[in-house]
Amino acid sequence: MKERLIVDMDGVLADTYQQYIITELKESGVEIKYDETLGLLEEEAFPNCIKHLETRGFFRTIPVMKNAQDTLRRLNEKFEVFVVSAATEFPFSLEEKYFWLEENFPFLTWEQFVFCGDNKVVKGDIMIDDFIQNLDSFQGRTILFSQPHNCNLNEHLHERVENWKDLENLLLS
Amino acid sequence: MKERLIVDMDGVLADTYQQYIITELKESGVEIKYDETLGLLEEEAFPNCIKHLETRGFFRTIPVMKNAQDTLRRLNEKFEVFVVSAATEFPFSLEEKYFWLEENFPFLTWEQFVFCGDNKVVKGDIMIDDFIQNLDSFQGRTILFSQPHNCNLNEHLHERVENWKDLENLLLS
Repeated sequence: MKERLIVDMDGVLADTYQQYIITELKESGVEIKYDETLGLLEEEAFPNCIKHLETRGFFRTIPVMKNAQDTLRRLNEKFEVFVVSAATEFPFSLEEKYFWLEENFPFLTWEQFVFCGDNKVVKGDIMIDDFIQNLDSFQGRTILFSQPHNCNLNEHLHERVENWKDLENLLLS
Repeated sequence: MKERLIVDMDGVLADTYQQYIITELKESGVEIKYDETLGLLEEEAFPNCIKHLETRGFFRTIPVMKNAQDTLRRLNEKFEVFVVSAATEFPFSLEEKYFWLEENFPFLTWEQFVFCGDNKVVKGDIMIDDFIQNLDSFQGRTILFSQPHNCNLNEHLHERVENWKDLENLLLS
């Protein structure tokens, strides 16, 4: 039986920081550089963060994380993949996230999507997430995906990857 | 620590058969009696079933199952409740289900909603569902909620309740 792999969406499949940078520039003309966000939470790096999250279209147009498509397609053959996203905090994001996944990861089916508010309700063997609190409550192998908000955390309870190439090496080689 | 209670939506919190009957009468003028649906799957009892499920508004206006509100409010104090619904098959249902829950079960929060395609990904102690296949793959106590499509099944692996009063007696007394 295949191992079950739980993959987070924002900050793992979706390049949320990049989308904040694009949106901030477009809406307020302020250019925030990626390097300036290192070590900062989303709400610290982007003052209009919540406003953006509540704006229709934000989630529908997020750039895909580099190399995520190719690597996840291959992971989907080896593992039983579920994409789990904390989506119910922003109800308008639900449809957008669905159609974003359908467009960018067409090899996944609707049976593999989970939109919830609290990741601790899911069960699996391996979890990839950028938030340590999600990994902490998971019973299984845990992989921290590096993002600006977690890059300074000195974290030893979870494996860490910098990008999808690292994930490929870790889980597919 | 509270036990985790997984509660299904369609056919448990939401009176889906009743909604089919209302919709069928409104759209085609055909009156289908509840008693005529006993022992039949949704698609056998309601020829236009899939068309209804794909129509905007169907999920947003489903009648609430009798006594579900009061009993779930009390269950929510005793248990860690998650409402889990197979929603991703019909992407337009996602928002509708969210706002339906918010309106009819205002004591629940968005953290307690799970919209997925396959219930086997959730973990808990007790599951209430009207579909035996969902209960079969659950590791924990399983309660079958009687609905027309399961009423003739001679099922002994799961406890059976006929309605929310039965659930109250079973889990709250």
